Amino acid sequence: MSISGRTRLFAILGDPVSVVRSPGWWNALFARAGRDAVFVPMQVGAADLPRAWAGLRAIGNLDGLVLTMPHKQAAVPLVDVLGGSARLTGAVNTVRRLPDGGWEGEMFDGEGFVAGLRARGITPEGRHVRQKGCGGAGRAIAFALARAGVASLALEDAAPDRAASLAAEVAATFPAVARGGEPDLLVNATPLGLSVNDPLPFDPATLSPRVSVADVIPNPEVTPLIAAARAAGCATATGRDMFEGQARLAAAYFGIGA
Amino acid sequence: MSISGRTRLFAILGDPVSVVRSPGWWNALFARAGRDAVFVPMQVGAADLPRAWAGLRAIGNLDGLVLTMPHKQAAVPLVDVLGGSARLTGAVNTVRRLPDGGWEGEMFDGEGFVAGLRARGITPEGRHVRQKGCGGAGRAIAFALARAGVASLALEDAAPDRAASLAAEVAATFPAVARGGEPDLLVNATPLGLSVNDPLPFDPATLSPRVSVADVIPNPEVTPLIAAARAAGCATATGRDMFEGQARLAAAYFGIGA
Repeated sequence: MSISGRTRLFAILGDPVSVVRSPGWWNALFARAGRDAVFVPMQVGAADLPRAWAGLRAIGNLDGLVLTMPHKQAAVPLVDVLGGSARLTGAVNTVRRLPDGGWEGEMFDGEGFVAGLRARGITPEGRHVRQKGCGGAGRAIAFALARAGVASLALEDAAPDRAASLAAEVAATFPAVARGGEPDLLVNATPLGLSVNDPLPFDPATLSPRVSVADVIPNPEVTPLIAAARAAGCATATGRDMFEGQARLAAAYFGIGA
Repeated sequence: MSISGRTRLFAILGDPVSVVRSPGWWNALFARAGRDAVFVPMQVGAADLPRAWAGLRAIGNLDGLVLTMPHKQAAVPLVDVLGGSARLTGAVNTVRRLPDGGWEGEMFDGEGFVAGLRARGITPEGRHVRQKGCGGAGRAIAFALARAGVASLALEDAAPDRAASLAAEVAATFPAVARGGEPDLLVNATPLGLSVNDPLPFDPATLSPRVSVADVIPNPEVTPLIAAARAAGCATATGRDMFEGQARLAAAYFGIGA
């Protein structure tokens, strides 16, 4: 990578941002694509987002932003144009510069999750899904699974109200998706697995080769759930697969082939 | 260079910024020093500086800024603490983060110019200087030459008022410096030489081995003035020498050995 005065900027905004691994992925992509661009981390606290945003708009060679915790919902009112998935989920994870200098935002976490499933040979069509976790990532995944054509979607959350309200929202937009069924795709969209001491999000007795298992946690890539699923003969998709899926979609949104 | 979520940020703000060459210098320095940091260009128009500034303050891993045209004077009221050269010249070219999150600014163009002279064996002490150009760079250079102990300083500018007023300011702070003398150090602080079609800022008939010549233009490094001076046997210091001088001072200000 050689940065000059002509280099274009991309950044990920988060807090904490030290844990993100995406700069390495993006800068390798720019190198492969022959783009004179650099992707950098920017640590911005939740309360500072509007002020940082106003300043970043004034940087003429800043072409795109990726948003992570805690900014995905807060960025929605700051974006000038919202894509369909962003409107549906009420969250934004990728923002690109419009020709008039404004910002257009879209949410690729859900579609990226589905792309990660497909990359591992797990087709979502007709699946009976049991999903734990209905926070930001869970919302995006639930809508994307429904759009991809799952047969049923059973949503659970430590806060039952949150699960019920997301289920109602998904049902309103995708009435063909049933509420439950004998699950053959288990989705962990909770933080369980970030620490090795976490309990498994699903009872390992429910794991068998007819069940596929997907996790949102990118690091460690092999969570205790993924390890148990592989031991039980399940097809698996990891948080790294989800990351790669959403990053490729974001790159295409930025006009860069991945 | 490998950028991760822990990488610290430094940036140069300018308009245009595409012409700056400093990112290459800084990123090579970070690599030599083993710093996990990256230096990027940010294109910010003159009218946008206050807004960009407010936003950049909110980026927690942004440790320093370098300012170039047209921001050096405009940044003065935006900085929380001003160094001595910045107060004297009314301009800032380097800003570092204070422990409380505020910004402290200093002006190294003049001291960097003097460091560039010394790097080429041109000692300023006791010199009779004839300087053309009393804009931002010229102001910084005039004060730094006076502080370095030149015997006399004859200032000229396309706007005679500007030369007279800078001369008065320098005389007020450094009363030992005379207004003129038979010049043995010629300083070009005008833009003449940026284009090969520019006239020489000094009559080549005045060039001889007893006269040293310094130019502020970094690109082309060998301006027609520098070429003529070398042909006449003069010691020379180029805009690149000035750049390296101020960049080393700025790096030390950031706590990085150059």
